[in-house]
Order: sequence, then structure tokens, then C-alpha cells
Amino acid sequence: MTVAGKIGVVGAYSTRYESRTLKETHEMIHEVASHVFNTVDKGMSPREVDLIIVSNYSDSFGGILHSAPLVASYIGNSDAKGFRVENACASGSTAVFLAWKLLMSGAFKNVLIVGFEKMSVIGSSAKTNELLMRTGSPEEYKVGAPFMSLYALMAKEYMRRYGATEEDLAMVAVKNHENAIRNPLAQFQKKITVEDVLRSPYISKPLKLFDASPISDGAVALLLSSEPRKYTDTPVYIAGIGLNHDYPGVYQREDMASIKAAKLSADEAYKMSGLSHKEVDLFEVHDAFTIAEIILYEMLGLAAKGEGYKLVREGVTSFNGSKPVNPSGGLKAKGHPIGATGVGMVAEVYWQLRGEAGARQVSGAEVGLVENHGGTGGTSVVIVFRR
Amino acid sequence: MTVAGKIGVVGAYSTRYESRTLKETHEMIHEVASHVFNTVDKGMSPREVDLIIVSNYSDSFGGILHSAPLVASYIGNSDAKGFRVENACASGSTAVFLAWKLLMSGAFKNVLIVGFEKMSVIGSSAKTNELLMRTGSPEEYKVGAPFMSLYALMAKEYMRRYGATEEDLAMVAVKNHENAIRNPLAQFQKKITVEDVLRSPYISKPLKLFDASPISDGAVALLLSSEPRKYTDTPVYIAGIGLNHDYPGVYQREDMASIKAAKLSADEAYKMSGLSHKEVDLFEVHDAFTIAEIILYEMLGLAAKGEGYKLVREGVTSFNGSKPVNPSGGLKAKGHPIGATGVGMVAEVYWQLRGEAGARQVSGAEVGLVENHGGTGGTSVVIVFRR
Repeated sequence: MTVAGKIGVVGAYSTRYESRTLKETHEMIHEVASHVFNTVDKGMSPREVDLIIVSNYSDSFGGILHSAPLVASYIGNSDAKGFRVENACASGSTAVFLAWKLLMSGAFKNVLIVGFEKMSVIGSSAKTNELLMRTGSPEEYKVGAPFMSLYALMAKEYMRRYGATEEDLAMVAVKNHENAIRNPLAQFQKKITVEDVLRSPYISKPLKLFDASPISDGAVALLLSSEPRKYTDTPVYIAGIGLNHDYPGVYQREDMASIKAAKLSADEAYKMSGLSHKEVDLFEVHDAFTIAEIILYEMLGLAAKGEGYKLVREGVTSFNGSKPVNPSGGLKAKGHPIGATGVGMVAEVYWQLRGEAGARQVSGAEVGLVENHGGTGGTSVVIVFRR
Repeated sequence: MTVAGKIGVVGAYSTRYESRTLKETHEMIHEVASHVFNTVDKGMSPREVDLIIVSNYSDSFGGILHSAPLVASYIGNSDAKGFRVENACASGSTAVFLAWKLLMSGAFKNVLIVGFEKMSVIGSSAKTNELLMRTGSPEEYKVGAPFMSLYALMAKEYMRRYGATEEDLAMVAVKNHENAIRNPLAQFQKKITVEDVLRSPYISKPLKLFDASPISDGAVALLLSSEPRKYTDTPVYIAGIGLNHDYPGVYQREDMASIKAAKLSADEAYKMSGLSHKEVDLFEVHDAFTIAEIILYEMLGLAAKGEGYKLVREGVTSFNGSKPVNPSGGLKAKGHPIGATGVGMVAEVYWQLRGEAGARQVSGAEVGLVENHGGTGGTSVVIVFRR
């Protein structure tokens, strides 16, 4: 493909994801926006950045709007153009999608992406749920449903149809917690068992507390360039990318046991890259709830429809399996600071493909895939990276 | 210029701006996103839109996030790609800037822009101020200043230095209220006098209640195309455009009596268009507070530094003056539903250059300019349009 291998990631920096950071939102932004330049092998001056894209979900999670000029002032470059982008939980990968489009067009040369969210500023779980429900359809919002109940609908339909069990869902959580132990950036570094998950309280049956990703604080920055070799001998290239939508409401979808936008985006990204799931060495996917990871196995081609849950049973997607999924710990255990999440997934694949992932390194990784979706799947972005 | 006249606006639709709409946010979005297609002279099917850009300031003003797939579902086209963009009060013009960049690149052909804000959902003025202050620097936010006090700093410095008076500021409000009487879309259709303004209570000296734009609800949609003549024989072309930033905090700026980002963007837009302020027949500018309009006269080249206030004294910028500014009524009297504002300014210029502005039509208008800024000037976008 002509487009493959033109745009590369050349730098990445992340805070640790935390349950309750002591940093203020603007301090996290300052930290990642300045430190990311130190991660560029051959160096990059902040003055070489000509576009800043900020990813943040709700301004109530952190209290900052108009963040592009703030970032510009922090890096000392008010000549760069900038804006914030939001696509619910897929904001971070949407920022990468836009950076890619705008770099490909030649309109810009080097893009700084900053993703952040400080969810802990909201003390009340009712208010947090209200903010999360702003992502779905107006009808779902009005009925006052908890966000998790939307994924519970998907889980129920999936289990009814294919015979997956609550134990299968629990095994996703167990796997991702185990992976996070190897990740110093992860919010949780604590092994859990299937029994722990099964004994945790139902939030929305069949989903329990331990089926859910946590409330997180964190920020991540990336540098992308249309001349990546100017900045490093080992850039990580965007080989294929897709962004697609579906109806915002779960109840409106063709198939509640699918995430159609992810399937469409995976198909696009694979086609553009000339690669298939067979060539992908590791996957970072949007396991906001355990059921999502299982459905995503199917959307990404790792399993046939209705067979995804068997992969986790058989250990295929474990760290030592043939197709490691979420070696970082995923949203479930690494954490899910919404606006940072997609940016952090890309950072993780960047480190993996450069052999810099430390104890969680997938050995010999050459191709990595990110799937990051918004809401219950109203938006999904899939990106295939290769070194 | 090679870039001028390639991208055109081919449709525009706006709700009336209101103090307290009876419509829900998603109803406003639905209304403008569907009706805008009916305004295209030769017709456009929603299926021809391949990119949706939504402009909204705070999700607390309206309660909706992840709005791109919502708009996609409302127009029955989930194949379009979409995202929301935010750059404070300049979100709408930033959406146009991005649409222009992405259309110019050939990556997309037809863009639907939807801007909205329902500010009336927040009943408390303290909470509204808190949301507005998210747009400035973290330091300004922390001192708990009212948003208007930041513009008061600019006004004080301007008045001290150049001898402008509170009467001069008042005359901007009087002019824009007079213009709004001719605009059926305007929130206020009521004449006011200089005395009314001067008698209104100080919010932050020297600025009074009647120096400020109101709290507004509204939504606007635009259609832009890279093949505008396919859709109308009288498109309105983007002849020049600039987006620039400055420090987010007023106290950080080189000159508190200027809006430097607007000057930079105007210079860029004029240069790209090959036109100067002399060729511009009407201006829609960001008069969030009266002082801003006066400073903008200078940034846009209509007056020398320190001379802007004389233009309003002399009636130059009145509806019947030689350089009409804000014939729509401006933010001051037409209203300022933040995410819709910049989109609405473009809609107004579209109608003016097509001769469709009814009682407020600037006769023979061929070139129009939009200036839309965020916060106190941390971002400014200037766009020159021609028919």
C-alpha cells in the first residue's frame, strides 16, 4: 500500500494511571507535553510541532477546556495550531486518526497529541454515571440507566446466544490483572482470581464490579511525524487505520452481541495495511467491561462469531499465548482515564514494537493493533502499527 | 491564490437563538442537521456527507457527548466519519478550519458541521461562570475571578492608554442591538440606548451587564463541499483562513489591549485571499463583550492601534456605515450559544453574500469576514469569504 509506512510515531510519554492522583489536571498535561520530547531518539524541538491535538472526554473530569493553547504555552510554541477532539472513550484514537489524515495531506509535519482525564475530581458515583451516560443515545440517558447496564445488555445477549458463562467473563479480568502486574504504569498491580470476580457485587447482572474498568486519572502524550526517520531510526508506523460509527444506542443496533463499528474499522485497517490478524503480534483493545474484550476477539478476526469466549478459556490471548491481548493490563487493570486511554494504547504498542516494554514485552513483536471505542460502540477506531 | 475558491459553503440552517429554549439539546441537533439539507439549491443527499464535525463547548451546557454518531444516526448515514471539536468559544470556526483543511486534502468531499449549546440548562450563575472559566489559564481559574473580569482588564488597559470611555463601549452594544432588530434569528429584538447601558449594573468595572453577550441556547448547521458548484450556482467560497493561538491567560500576554491571535489570523486570511479589509463588505466579529469589538477593529485593519473606538463614534461600523460590523446583531444581541456561535457567524456571511439576509441585508455584499475567538483570545480564527 502506498499509504503504509509514511506516518510514524516517534515519541511517547505517560503518567502512571492512578485511582486518585495528587497532581492537578494542568500539572499532568504539563508533565506529559514537556517530557514526551525527551523520548525522541534523535531529539525534536517543541518548535518543530505544527499541530497540537488534545483528547479529553468531559470537561467536568478535570475542569479544563480550551486546552490546545494551554499545551502550546507549556511547550513554548504558540505558532502551532491546535484544538481538542472528543469522541467519547474513543477520543484518543480519534486524535490519532485526525493526526494521520492531516499529516498524510501534507498540511502539517509533526503532531503532538495530549490525552488526559482526571475522573477522581467527581466524588459522586451518581454524577460519574451521569457524565458517562452523556455518551450514549438521549433515550438511554433519559431512562436513567447505569452505564454498565448497556454493556450488561450486550453480555446477556451474547451469553444467551453462545453459551458463554460469567466464569468466561471473569477470566478476562483475571488475565488482564495478571498482565498489569508487569506494567509499572498500571493502576492495579494485584492478582485476582476467578472467585474474586464472581464474588464481587453485581452492578448490572450479569456484570459485576470486577468486570468493569476503574475510575482513573492519567495523561499521555505522543509525537507523530510525516518524516519519522528524521527523529528516530526505529519509528513505529501507522500501517492501516479505520474509524467507523454505529447508532449511539445499544437498543438501536442490528446485533447487540456485536460491536459493528469495530468490525468495520478492523476490516479497513487490515485492508490498508495489507496485513491480517494472523500477522498481528499483540492487541491492545477496549476492555471497558470484560464482555467487550470477548466480543472484540470476534470483530478483529481472532475468533469466529460466538467463539470468542473460548480464546480466553484456552489461554490463547494470555501473555504467553499465541495472540496476547492487552499485555498492558488493558482498561480493566491498567486503568481507563477516558481521554488518555486511546493515546495510551498507542503508546503501549509503540513501546512493544520498539522492544521497550520491559517485563511485559511480547518477544519479537513486529506488528501491533489498537482497538479503542466510544460509548458502547457508537465509534470505533482500529489502528495497525508496524515497526 | 491557488487555494482560494476551491472550498465552498453550500447550505446553512440555524435555530433562532433563545434565552431559554423549550427544545431539548438533541432536538435542536436533530432540527439543524436534518433541515440544512433542504437549504441546498440543487439538493444534497445526507449520504453524500463523508465527514461530520460537531462543535460544542462544555458537555454541561446541554448534556451531550459523543455527538458525532448521534448526528450520523439523525441524518441516516453511519458511513460518514465524525468527531466533536472544541476550542472554547472558537469551537465553531475551528470546525470550519478543520473542514477546510480536510476538504482541501481530498480526504473528504462534503462536510456537515453542527454547532450547538444549551446554556440555559445551568440555572446558577456561579456554575455558569465556573464553566466559562474553564477556558482560561489554570491560574485565572484558581483565583475564582468572574469571566468578565478578564475582559475588564483588557478594557481598563485600553481605556487608560487610548482615552476611550464607557460611552464608547456602550455604543457598540447600542449598535448591535439596533442591528438585531432586523434579524429574526436574534435572541434580543429590542432597541437600547447609551443611557440604558450606562445605567446597567457593573459586573466588573468598567464592564456592565449590558456590555456582555447573553446566556443563549441555539444550534446551527452548515454544509461545505470541495465541489460546491455541484450543489449550487452561488456557493460562498472560503477565500482565506487563519487559526492562531496566544497564551491562555490575559495576564500572560504581551499586550492586554490587543487580541494578538486575531491579528495573526487576519493577516493569514487576508494574505491567502489576496484581499485586504478594504475589499470586505461586512464583518461578523466576536463581540462577547463590547471592548472586544473595538479591539477587533484594530486587529482586522479597520483602524490603527488605539483608534478603534472612534469608528463606532463616527458610525463607520453601523449598518448604514461604510464598514458594517455585526449586521446580525453580533454575540451581544443575536446571542452567544458558545458551540454554535462560530458556525452561526459563517451562516450569516453565507446568507449575506447570497443576498438572502432579508431586512439586515448589506446591499451588494461580495466579500465577508468572520472573526471568532476563544476565551479571552487564546485562539482566534479569521475567515474571508467571497461569493
